[in-house]
Amino acid sequence: MQELKIIKIGGNVINNEKLLSDFLDDFAKLESPKILVHGGGRAASELSVKMGINPKMINGRRITDTDTLEIITMVYGGKINKNIVAQLQARKCNSIGFSGADGNTIVSVKRPVTTIDYGFVGDVVEINTETSRILLDHKISPIFCAITHDENGQLLNTNADTIAAELAIALSKSYKVALYYCFEKNGVLTDITDDDSVVEKINEKIFEDLKREEIINEGMLPKIHNCLQAIKRGVNSVHIGNNAMPFNTNVKCTTFQQ
Amino acid sequence: MQELKIIKIGGNVINNEKLLSDFLDDFAKLESPKILVHGGGRAASELSVKMGINPKMINGRRITDTDTLEIITMVYGGKINKNIVAQLQARKCNSIGFSGADGNTIVSVKRPVTTIDYGFVGDVVEINTETSRILLDHKISPIFCAITHDENGQLLNTNADTIAAELAIALSKSYKVALYYCFEKNGVLTDITDDDSVVEKINEKIFEDLKREEIINEGMLPKIHNCLQAIKRGVNSVHIGNNAMPFNTNVKCTTFQQ
Repeated sequence: MQELKIIKIGGNVINNEKLLSDFLDDFAKLESPKILVHGGGRAASELSVKMGINPKMINGRRITDTDTLEIITMVYGGKINKNIVAQLQARKCNSIGFSGADGNTIVSVKRPVTTIDYGFVGDVVEINTETSRILLDHKISPIFCAITHDENGQLLNTNADTIAAELAIALSKSYKVALYYCFEKNGVLTDITDDDSVVEKINEKIFEDLKREEIINEGMLPKIHNCLQAIKRGVNSVHIGNNAMPFNTNVKCTTFQQ
Repeated sequence: MQELKIIKIGGNVINNEKLLSDFLDDFAKLESPKILVHGGGRAASELSVKMGINPKMINGRRITDTDTLEIITMVYGGKINKNIVAQLQARKCNSIGFSGADGNTIVSVKRPVTTIDYGFVGDVVEINTETSRILLDHKISPIFCAITHDENGQLLNTNADTIAAELAIALSKSYKVALYYCFEKNGVLTDITDDDSVVEKINEKIFEDLKREEIINEGMLPKIHNCLQAIKRGVNSVHIGNNAMPFNTNVKCTTFQQ
């Protein structure tokens, strides 16, 4: 099977014009079929403030009400996504912006209300890869923002890490997928103050050990869980590291194994 | 050659939830390959007001400064475009949202500054139809918002009527294209107060006569010019009329001829 790289970038790249430009230089140069998934960065919060809309938080978690969903659709699907596509075209990298509604690629259900009503947040239930595969066959890269839909006309806010993992799992039927999560650190660190303390390999057993010993920062747990799920469900390789990591095998990072 | 319908809708549909829903019902049911081009409606101005940004006008014409371009990218490319795509998916009509940057489909140049600096407004210089044709072959409809790019990373605000005409002209090499401009009237009217006074056929000669006799509303002139250009440059048929017109040949409208 052909190799496919799926790279997820987060706020640290999106928020920094120079880092984004450097990243897109590297991404454009990649020879293999490739998909980019991007988070939102600060821009959605900044627009909220400009519009006088206060973020709604319950137990420290952001709630996606109607106004917030509209802002996310405008910022992630419009401003960030279209600018990335335009910048990739400037680098002769042919690409198309996607939400999960485009090509009916990512179907989700609105998260059921339990003790918390998260609002318009979608949990992924189905991935349709046909449109992405057609485009990849023609050397056109899909660029995904973190929005999905419910097949009834409702857009839903969905975690970008999860979108990257679900796309990687579904596309593993057609490609040998390498999934890369880029973030501000060099990988999963045993000591958050030491950039060199990268855990180079994580499998289920090592993960359980790290959790028990409370070595890993709690905020990292969902990300690591996504990575292990991806490996378990057929993705060929999964890595967490800095923005240079997908483009240079000499860059230290955390690699996941079954 | 296979028939392709390209339908442009304007603010009167975009601004009205019921009209948009009815239109999308009809659009989804169309059997032939189809492309939708949409304008922006009121939402961009409404967001400007919310953000405290005053529209900049020179000689009565809106100027696309940096803030306005950002708003247009968010509203046209994000909010309106992604919601239309989600609503079409709900109607089992597979579609993908496009700006001119996506698939490098519509290349424009920033309008040169003469007596007026229009700001980030693009004049179309090149259409690349490959990506649209690939998708149409797979029964996926491109949904275009009125944004183009300059191949150097700059998004540009571009007239939606012009985008529809330029796409129609370029795609006429591969399809028998029928181009429809939907708007709030039943067609070009000789008496703006009489909805039945539709001019059913317009060619260059009739257009010159209508202009000389000052029968046509001045605001209609650029639209009619686009239509005549499209016919002259290879589009099979061009029509102006109401929102039902593309779906029902019994609906009276204005049809253009060479």
